[in-house]
Amino acid sequence: MNTSEFRRRGKEMVDYVANYMEGIEGRQVYPDVEPGYLRPLIPDSAPQEPDTFEDIINDIEKIIMPGAASPACTELETVMMDWLGKMLELPEAFLTEKAGEGGGVIQGSASEATLVALLAARTKAIHRLQAASPELTQAAIMEKLVAYSSDQAHSSVERAGLIGGVKLKAIPSDGNFAMRASALQEALESDRAAGLIPFFVVATLGTTTCCSFDNLLEVGPICNKEDMWLHVDAAYAGSAFICPEFRHLLNGVEFADSFNFNPHKWLLVNFDCSAMWVKKRSDLTGAFRLDPTYLKHSHQDSGKLKPAFNIFLTDGPFHVLFQHWQIPLGRRFRSLKMWFVFRMYGVKGLQAYIRKHVQLSHEFESLVLQDPRFEICAEVTLGLVCFRLKGSNKVNEALLQRINSAKKIHLVPCHLRDKFVLRFAICSRTVESAHVQRAWEHIKELAADVLRAEKE
Amino acid sequence: MNTSEFRRRGKEMVDYVANYMEGIEGRQVYPDVEPGYLRPLIPDSAPQEPDTFEDIINDIEKIIMPGAASPACTELETVMMDWLGKMLELPEAFLTEKAGEGGGVIQGSASEATLVALLAARTKAIHRLQAASPELTQAAIMEKLVAYSSDQAHSSVERAGLIGGVKLKAIPSDGNFAMRASALQEALESDRAAGLIPFFVVATLGTTTCCSFDNLLEVGPICNKEDMWLHVDAAYAGSAFICPEFRHLLNGVEFADSFNFNPHKWLLVNFDCSAMWVKKRSDLTGAFRLDPTYLKHSHQDSGKLKPAFNIFLTDGPFHVLFQHWQIPLGRRFRSLKMWFVFRMYGVKGLQAYIRKHVQLSHEFESLVLQDPRFEICAEVTLGLVCFRLKGSNKVNEALLQRINSAKKIHLVPCHLRDKFVLRFAICSRTVESAHVQRAWEHIKELAADVLRAEKE
Repeated sequence: MNTSEFRRRGKEMVDYVANYMEGIEGRQVYPDVEPGYLRPLIPDSAPQEPDTFEDIINDIEKIIMPGAASPACTELETVMMDWLGKMLELPEAFLTEKAGEGGGVIQGSASEATLVALLAARTKAIHRLQAASPELTQAAIMEKLVAYSSDQAHSSVERAGLIGGVKLKAIPSDGNFAMRASALQEALESDRAAGLIPFFVVATLGTTTCCSFDNLLEVGPICNKEDMWLHVDAAYAGSAFICPEFRHLLNGVEFADSFNFNPHKWLLVNFDCSAMWVKKRSDLTGAFRLDPTYLKHSHQDSGKLKPAFNIFLTDGPFHVLFQHWQIPLGRRFRSLKMWFVFRMYGVKGLQAYIRKHVQLSHEFESLVLQDPRFEICAEVTLGLVCFRLKGSNKVNEALLQRINSAKKIHLVPCHLRDKFVLRFAICSRTVESAHVQRAWEHIKELAADVLRAEKE
Repeated sequence: MNTSEFRRRGKEMVDYVANYMEGIEGRQVYPDVEPGYLRPLIPDSAPQEPDTFEDIINDIEKIIMPGAASPACTELETVMMDWLGKMLELPEAFLTEKAGEGGGVIQGSASEATLVALLAARTKAIHRLQAASPELTQAAIMEKLVAYSSDQAHSSVERAGLIGGVKLKAIPSDGNFAMRASALQEALESDRAAGLIPFFVVATLGTTTCCSFDNLLEVGPICNKEDMWLHVDAAYAGSAFICPEFRHLLNGVEFADSFNFNPHKWLLVNFDCSAMWVKKRSDLTGAFRLDPTYLKHSHQDSGKLKPAFNIFLTDGPFHVLFQHWQIPLGRRFRSLKMWFVFRMYGVKGLQAYIRKHVQLSHEFESLVLQDPRFEICAEVTLGLVCFRLKGSNKVNEALLQRINSAKKIHLVPCHLRDKFVLRFAICSRTVESAHVQRAWEHIKELAADVLRAEKE
């Protein structure tokens, strides 16, 4: 949507809200719809081509408003998570529509998704061990639980371990900054020998530092065999998997218990919107579920209308209660953002957006490779280019300082082993080749200044 | 703001966003301002009378845009939390501006605030006990840690205990549904005798069930004396404390380590916005802090410009890093909502809003009291009226079902001891006496139906 259409549509939305407020006394306080009403009203999957804005707005009045905030908010979320899961060709076990045990939920951030997965895994491990040895206390078990991630994993994984009160060990990554079977196996054997209980592995697809990919096809089967929960964190890279040519990067997700990525990072959905799927939703609700009277409602049992104070709850496919899937109790209607974006772009539009970014990062990569003073520090797979001046960390630190002080572009650095590395990230909605070219000219000029200053 | 002004202002905002997008290439990618730039540009406290919308919008361009998302997002939040803290007459120890050790942060929900407080308290307790007995493992300590709340506390407290992996005990509340010193003391003595380690107490001001108030003036000194973290959860009631006539309900907060309430519940700030203050912010950052290279920036040390890859961090009063105060890493610019609301209403406007709701709930209470078939079940202090038909739970359950099936109003019930109770909550921005009167007429009619059906 260009700015001139945005002006028009934005103002129509303002009027829509104002009209709603003016007519609010004519609306019912509670919807007439039955749980499960929404799914039959909308398609099974996201459109390939864009829908018109009129179509979307008309559907708001027709499909969402009769379901008000509840149950529309929950139901649209389950359907949007199915749409998105299908765009990624996630295994069916992760979808809700098949009336299986899995499903998707919107979390606020990948940090929360990792924490939620770790807590679910912890609860599951404690129950399993206590079932086998009823004399074990929770604390005695937690003392021995150990989680794993690659040494390239995001800091939020370490934080999840800290919050969850369990050990977290970093598995040394290989030459491509990937977690491999051998290093994981080695850690497992030594930890089991020491009496510890491995229970949780986070594999990262697209690390923050250099967009490297842990080897899911190696790590996954180990997790399944050793009865460890596998959580796959693809916070940034996940959006790319909607393109068939990048989907192979997700191979092995069939071994995972939970999978997460952030449409707010690279799929044009505004912050926050972190998409998380689990194979068995009872694993989440088992970790979080508490049911006071004031949270009871009349559809918790079977989908039939019942008094609003039932004691027992079950999650049928249409009776998802997301309050039990997350840390906060309240929720925003974030699936509306997904619905609008998926329909306004269509799958093809979103694929084109991803492809353009990847193409621009390869354009930057080739510029860097043409200049013998620079080197590429990690394989360029998606929209991130890790590069540096050949030479000391000091000269690269000086270059970064000049770049960020000039304030024409902004780079965030990382360390890859002992190397200080600059990261060029293609991430703006409106980025074009001209921006990349201009940025590279600018970087080259500042590099020349730095190299000149170094010689003096 | 009425709907006709909303139409005008909303459309101006749409144009503002469109203009921003059209002019984005002319803007710097990184701000020129130094940390701490924002506080001197805005008043020390919220205005008593409303500001004009023009004034607020002009300040956005003048004060926020030069500071872009960073550091403006963090700095406005610290100032807004000080504004709000002053509106509540919180002790100065909780404010940031005095360059002390305390401060405020916006969380997503009271559930998160309680969890964050519990995790901070847990870390502190573990450090303290390990300092005294270095041979103790974290797990050995956690096994003995015990937290307390009233039996009327929100289910999120129990969930925080579950996530934090510590025991949580419910203290029996008194005849007014309040936690008192004697019951807490009794639990402490018995738990200490059993070798447990009390470390955390949640006191609730305005419980979800019946808006009862734990006795802070009794509970607070016990927590301080026994070295237990006191967290005060005033999720709903907190907004009322901006009125001098209700501020006494907050007396005793000076004993607390952390305090939380939700401006999104009753202070006209849209969901989500949960305000949390701590007396010692290093207690939070101690529980959450991890510092990978890609999160380093150039102002982490002393407020002077430095290379963007410093290793060490300190939190000075102007160097607050909220990522260490919460569970997610990313954050939205939620303080803008507070800034707009506080200025558009002024403190007096917000006080008038609270007072109107309290007055309407007393109006409903007096209607109930005039009808001998009904009883009031808990003291009406703020905007909640707990009432029921004199008689069996069954007849009240039948009444609730009729009310919610008619869909003219919607009530959420609770249990108070063995009584099934209806809750009439005044909570809409546009509620008037006429709505209350109409609701009562409707309830009376349905009650007559229920009583007639019972006799048949």
